[in-house]
Amino acid sequence: MSPLSVPDAIRRRRSVRRFRPDPIPPALLRELLELAVAAPSSWNLQPWRIVVVTDEERRAALQRACYSQRQVGEAPVTLVFAVSNGGWRQEIEPMVAQAEARGAWLAEYAANVRVRAPQQQENLERRGEMREFNIRDTMIAATQAMLAAESLGLATCMMSGWQEELVKEAIGAADDEDIGIAVLLEVGYAAETPVDPGRCALSRNVFLDRLGEPYPAGRSSDDDGAGASPLRPEPAG
Amino acid sequence: MSPLSVPDAIRRRRSVRRFRPDPIPPALLRELLELAVAAPSSWNLQPWRIVVVTDEERRAALQRACYSQRQVGEAPVTLVFAVSNGGWRQEIEPMVAQAEARGAWLAEYAANVRVRAPQQQENLERRGEMREFNIRDTMIAATQAMLAAESLGLATCMMSGWQEELVKEAIGAADDEDIGIAVLLEVGYAAETPVDPGRCALSRNVFLDRLGEPYPAGRSSDDDGAGASPLRPEPAG
Repeated sequence: MSPLSVPDAIRRRRSVRRFRPDPIPPALLRELLELAVAAPSSWNLQPWRIVVVTDEERRAALQRACYSQRQVGEAPVTLVFAVSNGGWRQEIEPMVAQAEARGAWLAEYAANVRVRAPQQQENLERRGEMREFNIRDTMIAATQAMLAAESLGLATCMMSGWQEELVKEAIGAADDEDIGIAVLLEVGYAAETPVDPGRCALSRNVFLDRLGEPYPAGRSSDDDGAGASPLRPEPAG
Repeated sequence: MSPLSVPDAIRRRRSVRRFRPDPIPPALLRELLELAVAAPSSWNLQPWRIVVVTDEERRAALQRACYSQRQVGEAPVTLVFAVSNGGWRQEIEPMVAQAEARGAWLAEYAANVRVRAPQQQENLERRGEMREFNIRDTMIAATQAMLAAESLGLATCMMSGWQEELVKEAIGAADDEDIGIAVLLEVGYAAETPVDPGRCALSRNVFLDRLGEPYPAGRSSDDDGAGASPLRPEPAG
């Protein structure tokens, strides 16, 4: 089966809470990770630290950290997307050198990044905004993994209910103050086919030019390009 | 042209800083928005508020809010992904009723959400974590828009350099304390083909089971399924 297109993967994806025990083939898991880290990030500083949790005991610890939610116990793999808030100090020089060597950044731009990126990172630290910045970039990587998984025949559940200190403990980072947790992604093979719970109408949360000015509805049934209900695939199963 | 697969879209995407002036056809833009709001969110509460900025004056104001970065002036559309931190109070009941009506949530689960979601949202408010939670979910929507754009022949630039108060002013939300800014996404047709600056090796930021234990390298060249350098498409142009 060839990988799903982006629109198909987005429309078919549902948060799955029942997984089969089948493991994910190593080559497929590796592909997901490569696709995750291809995400863009501020100054290309790649603040994510991804922990691939497959060990039984650590999975059990993660499930406890997630208020015992079923899917964390069932999914064969949990991807813990952590952030390193200070790692940029070590990462910046090899990253700039690589971009320069590949011809992606001209010498002048690279020199500029070497000066300006640290200044801006230190500003974020001073203003207490580093964690939010890093979580933002790391969510891009996690979303890439989520959609890549869907496109390659896997199912996922993006987790928002977890206790940060317990997640850190489960991945062996209990005392590491540099580390924060952005999100957990359960990955495996679905044992259920959830029905789409729907979304509110675009007129409620999409606006034109200013907040409060509803984005105009499509003028004809052709207008949204994908039929009247693009978010409503036939309920599977 | 049929839409790119998720892996192809991820590998071809680059942050573009030079755009052609061509506008985005309305049906295509609408498709992007539908794909953005299909993102999962905590309790399906959809905290994003997306402002599609095309108006000349507001685009100029956004460019000033982004330290005059070129791409904000050139891209025909900026999607401002804002968050509403209190909107869930109005959204929750229609959302639960819809999920129930569609058969996605059984009555018992829906009743449970009606009680537990507000409790947990109020806990987030008390702990000062609501903004971070909402930004997290909203980044999923923004990333879906980014990859959908790539798959449909558009180019993007995810922006991290902007001043929140000025962005809020540009979208007419200067005095709205309920609103935060998650991210800006420039969208349009590329006028350049940037070279991939590369990423650090997986062994530096991907780990197995615990932080610090490097994820094992592929054991054979077959192992990563996409050749030796899946992140290195041939430099275009």
